[in-house]
Amino acid sequence: MTADPARRSERSRRAILDAALELLAETGYSDLTIEAIASRAGVGKQTIYRWWRGKGAIILDALIDATSSAEALVLPDTGDLEADLRTVMRATVAEFADPKLSATTRALTIETLNDEKLAEQVRDQLLRPQLDAVKKRLQAGPIRADVDLDQAVELLFGPLYHRWLLRTGPLTDEYADGVVQLAIAAITP
Amino acid sequence: MTADPARRSERSRRAILDAALELLAETGYSDLTIEAIASRAGVGKQTIYRWWRGKGAIILDALIDATSSAEALVLPDTGDLEADLRTVMRATVAEFADPKLSATTRALTIETLNDEKLAEQVRDQLLRPQLDAVKKRLQAGPIRADVDLDQAVELLFGPLYHRWLLRTGPLTDEYADGVVQLAIAAITP
Repeated sequence: MTADPARRSERSRRAILDAALELLAETGYSDLTIEAIASRAGVGKQTIYRWWRGKGAIILDALIDATSSAEALVLPDTGDLEADLRTVMRATVAEFADPKLSATTRALTIETLNDEKLAEQVRDQLLRPQLDAVKKRLQAGPIRADVDLDQAVELLFGPLYHRWLLRTGPLTDEYADGVVQLAIAAITP
Repeated sequence: MTADPARRSERSRRAILDAALELLAETGYSDLTIEAIASRAGVGKQTIYRWWRGKGAIILDALIDATSSAEALVLPDTGDLEADLRTVMRATVAEFADPKLSATTRALTIETLNDEKLAEQVRDQLLRPQLDAVKKRLQAGPIRADVDLDQAVELLFGPLYHRWLLRTGPLTDEYADGVVQLAIAAITP
């Protein structure tokens, strides 16, 4: 077969996601348009709208692609829970500190506040896998038997997210380490 | 003096804030307009723009007025830190659970993500007094001497905020109690 439709589709999909991330880096989220993405990717606008509801959904897919290929979403288990959590929390701080990634996440957050369906997609496809990876590392312990793992995960990410979104103070490695230290005191035997 | 300008100003200011909250309740944030607020308050649009930059700033002032008159922003100190924190965290859950208040906070959050100046005002005038009130109660203890109070406060509010904004799970009294229990384990001697 010289013109496999599935392969052609996958090539268009990749071209669209790549174009979206390139343009995002060049123009920022608010100036990003479907027209520009279509033109850069060499496809028609209708091709994009066949697969995505809007630019929020495209960027979400691009971010999912980027994060799931960059790391297998399995946390290291060195046997030292506090050290392993420090590693993942510092990585989160680094993501928030990256101006481009931070602007994109902020823009996506705005869209999710207006769009419940997109909010569910972000939660289930982007956020949940990251939270679950940390949950799995927590499960390996050592932690107290009565600790609710979902609460423990949000005890780690909640303060970072709060500080990032509400700019209540500097979001640094020291802050991440401090949150981990408190969480460790809360959940270990 | 029969026409004290300061008193007339204060009367207009009150009328505008009241009109804004009334209309917010009737139409929701996204349909709220400066025109409608001016008309309901019986003032000209230019009067509003003399004092506020936009509807986000008006709603912020109205919320500050409402919260600072409703409670003196001093937490109860019953001598039982865990019980006192449970009271304030459950009150926060109740605020998030109120559909109107939740929609307003969500809308204001969106505006702050687009408007750094408004973000600073929300943080310093609305958020900071609430966080400081909890900080003061924590200071009364009993807590460990090495605990960073700013971190401790965000260990409490961060998980609630995370769950509210990202809808990662049910935001209930039980969740609030669980967060408090973990935080108490983290910060008490």
